[in-house]
Amino acid sequence: MDYKELLKNRRSVRNYAGRKVPLETLHEIIQETCLAPSSCNRQPWRFILIQDVHLIKRLSDENKKNWLLEIEKNQSPFLEQFEPLFKNPDYNIFYNASSLVIICGVQGPYAHEDCSLAAAYFMFAATERQLGTCWIAWGEKILDPQLRVEIGITDDLEIVAPLIIGYPQSVPPLPERESIILKEIIG
Amino acid sequence: MDYKELLKNRRSVRNYAGRKVPLETLHEIIQETCLAPSSCNRQPWRFILIQDVHLIKRLSDENKKNWLLEIEKNQSPFLEQFEPLFKNPDYNIFYNASSLVIICGVQGPYAHEDCSLAAAYFMFAATERQLGTCWIAWGEKILDPQLRVEIGITDDLEIVAPLIIGYPQSVPPLPERESIILKEIIG
Repeated sequence: MDYKELLKNRRSVRNYAGRKVPLETLHEIIQETCLAPSSCNRQPWRFILIQDVHLIKRLSDENKKNWLLEIEKNQSPFLEQFEPLFKNPDYNIFYNASSLVIICGVQGPYAHEDCSLAAAYFMFAATERQLGTCWIAWGEKILDPQLRVEIGITDDLEIVAPLIIGYPQSVPPLPERESIILKEIIG
Repeated sequence: MDYKELLKNRRSVRNYAGRKVPLETLHEIIQETCLAPSSCNRQPWRFILIQDVHLIKRLSDENKKNWLLEIEKNQSPFLEQFEPLFKNPDYNIFYNASSLVIICGVQGPYAHEDCSLAAAYFMFAATERQLGTCWIAWGEKILDPQLRVEIGITDDLEIVAPLIIGYPQSVPPLPERESIILKEIIG
Protein backbone atom coordinates (compact mmCIF):
# COMPACT_ATOMS: atom_id res chain seq x y z
CA MET A 1 0.00 0.00 0.00
CA ASP A 2 1.12 3.53 -0.70
CA TYR A 3 2.40 5.23 2.44
CA LYS A 4 0.04 8.18 2.00
CA GLU A 5 -2.86 5.71 2.01
CA LEU A 6 -1.51 4.07 5.14
CA LEU A 7 -1.28 7.42 6.87
CA LYS A 8 -4.87 8.14 5.95
CA ASN A 9 -6.16 4.70 6.91
CA ARG A 10 -4.41 4.06 10.23
CA ARG A 11 -6.92 4.42 13.02
CA SER A 12 -7.35 3.29 16.60
CA VAL A 13 -10.00 0.61 16.10
CA ARG A 14 -12.12 -0.50 19.06
CA ASN A 15 -14.77 -2.56 17.27
CA TYR A 16 -13.74 -5.87 15.74
CA ALA A 17 -15.28 -8.73 13.81
CA GLY A 18 -14.91 -11.96 15.75
CA ARG A 19 -12.74 -13.94 13.38
CA LYS A 20 -9.12 -14.42 14.27
CA VAL A 21 -6.18 -13.07 12.35
CA PRO A 22 -4.16 -16.00 10.90
CA LEU A 23 -0.99 -16.67 12.86
CA GLU A 24 1.06 -16.42 9.68
CA THR A 25 -0.14 -12.84 9.16
CA LEU A 26 0.72 -11.94 12.75
CA HIS A 27 4.18 -13.41 12.29
CA GLU A 28 4.72 -11.31 9.16
CA ILE A 29 3.62 -8.19 11.04
CA ILE A 30 5.95 -8.91 13.96
CA GLN A 31 8.78 -9.55 11.50
CA GLU A 32 8.25 -6.10 9.95
CA THR A 33 7.95 -4.57 13.42
CA CYS A 34 11.50 -5.65 14.12
CA LEU A 35 12.77 -3.37 11.34
CA ALA A 36 12.26 -0.41 13.68
CA PRO A 37 15.45 1.37 14.71
CA SER A 38 16.57 1.16 18.31
CA SER A 39 19.10 2.82 20.55
CA CYS A 40 22.55 1.26 19.86
CA ASN A 41 20.63 -1.36 17.81
CA ARG A 42 19.71 -3.04 21.10
CA GLN A 43 16.38 -4.33 19.76
CA PRO A 44 14.93 -4.59 23.26
CA TRP A 45 11.51 -5.79 22.05
CA ARG A 46 9.95 -9.07 23.13
CA PHE A 47 6.53 -10.17 21.98
CA ILE A 48 3.68 -11.94 23.70
CA LEU A 49 0.92 -13.00 21.34
CA ILE A 50 -2.35 -14.14 22.89
CA GLN A 51 -5.25 -15.54 20.90
CA ASP A 52 -7.09 -17.14 23.82
CA VAL A 53 -10.13 -14.91 24.42
CA HIS A 54 -10.63 -16.29 27.93
CA LEU A 55 -7.09 -15.36 28.87
CA ILE A 56 -7.51 -11.92 27.25
CA LYS A 57 -10.64 -11.47 29.39
CA ARG A 58 -8.71 -12.49 32.53
CA LEU A 59 -6.01 -9.95 31.65
CA SER A 60 -8.69 -7.29 31.22
CA ASP A 61 -10.10 -8.13 34.68
CA GLU A 62 -6.62 -8.07 36.23
CA ASN A 63 -5.97 -4.62 34.77
CA LYS A 64 -9.36 -3.22 35.85
CA LYS A 65 -8.80 -4.49 39.38
CA ASN A 66 -5.38 -2.89 39.58
CA TRP A 67 -6.51 0.45 38.14
CA LEU A 68 -9.29 0.56 40.73
CA LEU A 69 -6.71 -0.06 43.47
CA GLU A 70 -4.57 2.69 41.96
CA ILE A 71 -7.53 5.10 42.07
CA GLU A 72 -8.11 4.17 45.70
CA LYS A 73 -4.45 4.82 46.54
CA ASN A 74 -3.88 8.04 44.57
CA GLN A 75 -6.99 10.15 44.23
CA SER A 76 -6.18 11.32 40.70
CA PRO A 77 -9.05 13.24 39.09
CA PHE A 78 -7.81 12.01 35.71
CA LEU A 79 -8.10 8.35 36.70
CA GLU A 80 -11.30 8.79 38.70
CA GLN A 81 -13.33 9.61 35.61
CA PHE A 82 -12.72 6.03 34.46
CA GLU A 83 -13.85 4.42 37.71
CA PRO A 84 -17.38 3.53 36.50
CA LEU A 85 -15.85 1.91 33.43
CA PHE A 86 -13.48 -0.24 35.47
CA LYS A 87 -16.36 -1.26 37.74
CA ASN A 88 -18.53 -2.30 34.80
CA PRO A 89 -18.26 -6.09 34.43
CA ASP A 90 -19.23 -5.86 30.75
CA TYR A 91 -16.37 -3.56 29.91
CA ASN A 92 -13.42 -5.42 28.41
CA ILE A 93 -10.46 -3.07 28.17
CA PHE A 94 -9.36 -5.02 25.09
CA TYR A 95 -12.73 -4.48 23.39
CA ASN A 96 -13.22 -8.22 22.85
CA ALA A 97 -10.52 -8.28 20.20
CA SER A 98 -9.51 -11.85 19.45
CA SER A 99 -5.78 -11.12 19.36
CA LEU A 100 -3.56 -9.25 21.75
CA VAL A 101 0.12 -8.58 21.17
CA ILE A 102 2.01 -7.18 24.13
CA ILE A 103 5.33 -5.59 23.24
CA CYS A 104 7.56 -5.80 26.28
CA GLY A 105 10.87 -4.02 26.63
CA VAL A 106 14.01 -5.51 28.13
CA GLN A 107 14.81 -3.08 30.95
CA GLY A 108 17.50 -0.60 30.02
CA PRO A 109 17.92 2.87 28.55
CA TYR A 110 15.35 3.81 25.92
CA ALA A 111 13.38 0.55 26.22
CA HIS A 112 10.10 2.49 26.22
CA GLU A 113 11.11 4.69 23.30
CA ASP A 114 12.40 1.77 21.22
CA CYS A 115 9.34 -0.37 21.86
CA SER A 116 7.10 2.59 21.01
CA LEU A 117 8.86 2.92 17.66
CA ALA A 118 8.24 -0.80 17.19
CA ALA A 119 4.57 -0.25 18.04
CA ALA A 120 4.29 2.34 15.26
CA TYR A 121 5.77 -0.19 12.84
CA PHE A 122 3.33 -2.81 14.12
CA MET A 123 0.33 -0.55 13.56
CA PHE A 124 1.44 0.35 10.03
CA ALA A 125 2.14 -3.29 9.12
CA ALA A 126 -1.35 -4.17 10.35
CA THR A 127 -3.03 -1.32 8.49
CA GLU A 128 -1.30 -2.41 5.30
CA ARG A 129 -3.06 -5.77 5.71
CA GLN A 130 -6.49 -4.13 6.27
CA LEU A 131 -6.28 -4.88 9.98
CA GLY A 132 -7.17 -2.53 12.79
CA THR A 133 -5.12 -1.97 15.92
CA CYS A 134 -5.33 -0.01 19.13
CA TRP A 135 -2.68 0.61 21.78
CA ILE A 136 -4.44 -0.14 25.05
CA ALA A 137 -2.45 1.68 27.70
CA TRP A 138 -4.85 0.35 30.39
CA GLY A 139 -3.37 -3.06 29.60
CA GLU A 140 -0.03 -2.41 31.27
CA LYS A 141 -1.14 -3.15 34.85
CA ILE A 142 -0.64 -6.89 34.89
CA LEU A 143 0.76 -7.27 38.40
CA ASP A 144 -0.27 -10.73 39.56
CA PRO A 145 2.99 -12.73 39.70
CA GLN A 146 1.40 -15.99 38.55
CA LEU A 147 -0.35 -14.35 35.64
CA ARG A 148 2.91 -12.68 34.65
CA VAL A 149 4.67 -16.05 34.64
CA GLU A 150 1.79 -17.61 32.72
CA ILE A 151 2.10 -15.14 29.86
CA GLY A 152 5.88 -15.04 29.92
CA ILE A 153 6.71 -11.68 31.46
CA THR A 154 10.07 -12.43 33.02
CA ASP A 155 11.63 -10.15 35.65
CA ASP A 156 13.81 -8.35 33.10
CA LEU A 157 10.80 -7.18 31.09
CA GLU A 158 8.45 -4.20 31.26
CA ILE A 159 5.16 -4.00 29.46
CA VAL A 160 5.32 -1.12 26.99
CA ALA A 161 2.67 -1.55 24.32
CA PRO A 162 -0.39 -3.80 24.70
CA LEU A 163 -1.82 -3.81 21.17
CA ILE A 164 -5.11 -5.32 20.09
CA ILE A 165 -5.39 -6.35 16.48
CA GLY A 166 -8.18 -7.70 14.31
CA TYR A 167 -10.57 -7.19 11.43
CA PRO A 168 -12.37 -3.87 11.91
CA GLN A 169 -16.13 -4.08 12.27
CA SER A 170 -16.22 -0.32 11.89
CA VAL A 171 -13.52 2.32 11.49
CA PRO A 172 -13.91 5.61 13.36
CA PRO A 173 -13.08 8.96 11.78
CA LEU A 174 -9.67 10.48 12.47
CA PRO A 175 -9.82 12.36 15.78
CA GLU A 176 -9.13 16.02 15.22
CA ARG A 177 -5.57 17.23 15.34
CA GLU A 178 -4.51 20.44 17.02
CA SER A 179 -2.42 23.01 15.20
CA ILE A 180 1.26 22.25 15.19
CA ILE A 181 3.27 23.96 17.91
CA LEU A 182 6.64 24.63 16.34
CA LYS A 183 9.55 26.89 17.20
CA GLU A 184 11.87 27.60 14.29
CA ILE A 185 15.42 28.86 14.49
CA ILE A 186 16.84 29.44 11.05
CA GLY A 187 20.50 30.36 10.59
CA MET B 1 6.08 5.51 -1.99
CA ASP B 2 4.94 1.97 -1.33
CA TYR B 3 5.16 1.09 2.35
CA LYS B 4 7.27 -2.00 1.67
CA GLU B 5 9.79 0.27 -0.08
CA LEU B 6 9.75 2.64 2.86
CA LEU B 7 10.40 -0.22 5.26
CA LYS B 8 13.35 -1.31 3.13
CA ASN B 9 14.75 2.20 2.66
CA ARG B 10 14.47 3.68 6.15
CA ARG B 11 17.93 3.83 7.68
CA SER B 12 19.72 5.72 10.41
CA VAL B 13 21.80 8.09 8.27
CA ARG B 14 24.88 9.74 9.77
CA ASN B 15 26.47 11.20 6.63
CA TYR B 16 24.75 14.12 4.94
CA ALA B 17 25.23 16.38 1.94
CA GLY B 18 25.51 20.00 3.08
CA ARG B 19 22.46 21.49 1.41
CA LYS B 20 19.50 22.34 3.59
CA VAL B 21 16.10 20.73 3.40
CA PRO B 22 13.52 23.34 2.29
CA LEU B 23 11.39 24.59 5.17
CA GLU B 24 8.24 23.70 3.27
CA THR B 25 9.31 20.07 3.12
CA LEU B 26 10.02 20.05 6.85
CA HIS B 27 6.62 21.53 7.54
CA GLU B 28 4.96 18.80 5.47
CA ILE B 29 6.89 16.16 7.38
CA ILE B 30 5.92 17.63 10.74
CA GLN B 31 2.31 17.81 9.59
CA GLU B 32 2.32 14.09 8.79
CA THR B 33 4.10 13.38 12.08
CA CYS B 34 1.09 14.76 13.92
CA LEU B 35 -1.07 11.98 12.50
CA ALA B 36 0.49 9.61 15.03
CA PRO B 37 -1.91 8.28 17.64
CA SER B 38 -1.46 9.37 21.24
CA SER B 39 -2.77 8.37 24.62
CA CYS B 40 -6.26 9.92 25.08
CA ASN B 41 -5.50 11.90 21.89
CA ARG B 42 -3.40 14.24 24.04
CA GLN B 43 -0.97 15.03 21.18
CA PRO B 44 1.77 16.00 23.63
CA TRP B 45 4.32 16.72 20.89
CA ARG B 46 6.02 20.07 20.46
CA PHE B 47 8.61 20.71 17.77
CA ILE B 48 11.84 22.68 17.73
CA LEU B 49 13.32 23.03 14.27
CA ILE B 50 16.87 24.33 14.04
CA GLN B 51 18.63 25.10 10.78
CA ASP B 52 21.42 27.22 12.22
CA VAL B 53 24.56 25.05 12.01
CA HIS B 54 26.38 27.18 14.59
CA LEU B 55 23.58 26.65 17.09
CA ILE B 56 23.47 22.93 16.28
CA LYS B 57 27.23 22.81 16.97
CA ARG B 58 26.70 24.61 20.32
CA LEU B 59 24.01 22.10 21.22
CA SER B 60 26.40 19.28 20.36
CA ASP B 61 29.06 20.81 22.63
CA GLU B 62 26.54 21.27 25.44
CA ASN B 63 25.51 17.63 25.22
CA LYS B 64 29.11 16.35 25.08
CA LYS B 65 30.00 18.43 28.14
CA ASN B 66 27.04 17.07 30.09
CA TRP B 67 27.64 13.46 29.12
CA LEU B 68 31.25 13.81 30.29
CA LEU B 69 30.00 15.15 33.62
CA GLU B 70 27.57 12.24 33.80
CA ILE B 71 30.44 9.78 33.22
CA GLU B 72 32.42 11.49 35.98
CA LYS B 73 29.49 11.23 38.37
CA ASN B 74 28.31 7.68 37.61
CA GLN B 75 31.09 5.39 36.51
CA SER B 76 28.98 3.49 34.00
CA PRO B 77 31.03 1.10 31.85
CA PHE B 78 28.46 1.59 29.10
CA LEU B 79 28.92 5.36 29.00
CA GLU B 80 32.68 5.24 29.56
CA GLN B 81 33.29 3.64 26.18
CA PHE B 82 32.08 6.88 24.60
CA GLU B 83 34.36 9.14 26.65
CA PRO B 84 37.05 9.57 23.93
CA LEU B 85 34.31 10.51 21.46
CA PHE B 86 32.87 13.17 23.76
CA LYS B 87 36.37 14.55 24.35
CA ASN B 88 37.10 14.77 20.62
CA PRO B 89 36.48 18.39 19.54
CA ASP B 90 35.91 17.28 15.94
CA TYR B 91 33.04 14.98 16.89
CA ASN B 92 29.66 16.59 16.36
CA ILE B 93 26.98 14.39 17.90
CA PHE B 94 24.61 15.64 15.19
CA TYR B 95 27.02 14.56 12.42
CA ASN B 96 27.07 18.06 10.90
CA ALA B 97 23.51 17.64 9.64
CA SER B 98 22.10 20.98 8.57
CA SER B 99 18.70 20.44 10.19
CA LEU B 100 17.76 19.26 13.65
CA VAL B 101 14.21 18.67 14.79
CA ILE B 102 13.76 18.07 18.50
CA ILE B 103 10.46 16.49 19.44
CA CYS B 104 9.66 17.50 23.00
CA GLY B 105 6.88 16.01 25.08
CA VAL B 106 4.56 17.96 27.34
CA GLN B 107 5.09 16.28 30.72
CA GLY B 108 2.40 13.80 31.57
CA PRO B 109 1.58 10.12 31.22
CA TYR B 110 2.91 8.48 28.05
CA ALA B 111 4.66 11.60 26.76
CA HIS B 112 7.73 9.55 25.87
CA GLU B 113 5.72 6.80 24.22
CA ASP B 114 3.55 9.23 22.24
CA CYS B 115 6.50 11.30 21.05
CA SER B 116 8.34 8.12 20.07
CA LEU B 117 5.38 7.11 17.91
CA ALA B 118 5.56 10.59 16.38
CA ALA B 119 9.28 10.08 15.76
CA ALA B 120 8.54 6.91 13.79
CA TYR B 121 6.07 8.88 11.67
CA PHE B 122 8.67 11.62 11.19
CA MET B 123 11.28 9.14 9.98
CA PHE B 124 8.88 7.51 7.53
CA ALA B 125 7.69 10.87 6.18
CA ALA B 126 11.33 11.85 5.64
CA THR B 127 12.24 8.56 3.95
CA GLU B 128 9.31 8.99 1.59
CA ARG B 129 10.93 12.25 0.48
CA GLN B 130 14.35 10.62 -0.05
CA LEU B 131 15.64 12.22 3.13
CA GLY B 132 17.71 10.52 5.79
CA THR B 133 17.16 10.80 9.52
CA CYS B 134 18.76 9.60 12.70
CA TRP B 135 17.47 9.73 16.27
CA ILE B 136 20.37 11.14 18.29
CA ALA B 137 19.74 10.07 21.87
CA TRP B 138 22.96 11.84 22.93
CA GLY B 139 21.12 15.06 22.06
CA GLU B 140 18.79 14.98 25.06
CA LYS B 141 21.24 16.46 27.60
CA ILE B 142 20.61 20.13 26.98
CA LEU B 143 20.74 21.36 30.57
CA ASP B 144 21.99 24.95 30.38
CA PRO B 145 18.97 27.08 31.38
CA GLN B 146 19.79 29.91 28.98
CA LEU B 147 20.27 27.56 26.06
CA ARG B 148 16.98 25.87 26.90
CA VAL B 149 15.20 29.23 26.86
CA GLU B 150 16.96 30.18 23.62
CA ILE B 151 15.63 27.12 21.78
CA GLY B 152 12.21 27.23 23.42
CA ILE B 153 12.27 24.35 25.88
CA THR B 154 9.81 25.60 28.46
CA ASP B 155 9.58 24.07 31.94
CA ASP B 156 6.63 21.86 31.00
CA LEU B 157 8.61 20.10 28.25
CA GLU B 158 10.97 17.13 28.13
CA ILE B 159 13.23 16.35 25.22
CA VAL B 160 12.22 13.01 23.77
CA ALA B 161 13.52 12.67 20.22
CA PRO B 162 16.34 14.80 18.80
CA LEU B 163 16.21 13.93 15.09
CA ILE B 164 18.69 15.00 12.44
CA ILE B 165 17.40 15.17 8.90
CA GLY B 166 19.00 15.85 5.54
CA TYR B 167 20.02 14.58 2.14
CA PRO B 168 22.03 11.38 2.59
CA GLN B 169 25.60 11.47 1.30
CA SER B 170 25.71 7.72 1.82
CA VAL B 171 23.22 5.21 3.15
CA PRO B 172 24.51 2.41 5.41
CA PRO B 173 23.27 -1.18 5.12
CA LEU B 174 20.53 -2.33 7.47
CA PRO B 175 22.10 -3.41 10.76
CA GLU B 176 21.44 -7.07 11.39
CA ARG B 177 18.29 -8.04 13.22
CA GLU B 178 18.15 -10.72 15.87
CA SER B 179 15.65 -13.54 15.70
CA ILE B 180 12.25 -12.62 17.03
CA ILE B 181 11.60 -13.57 20.64
CA LEU B 182 7.93 -14.40 20.80
CA LYS B 183 5.73 -16.27 23.26
CA GLU B 184 2.47 -17.51 21.81
CA ILE B 185 -0.62 -18.49 23.72
CA ILE B 186 -3.29 -19.78 21.39
CA GLY B 187 -6.75 -20.59 22.64
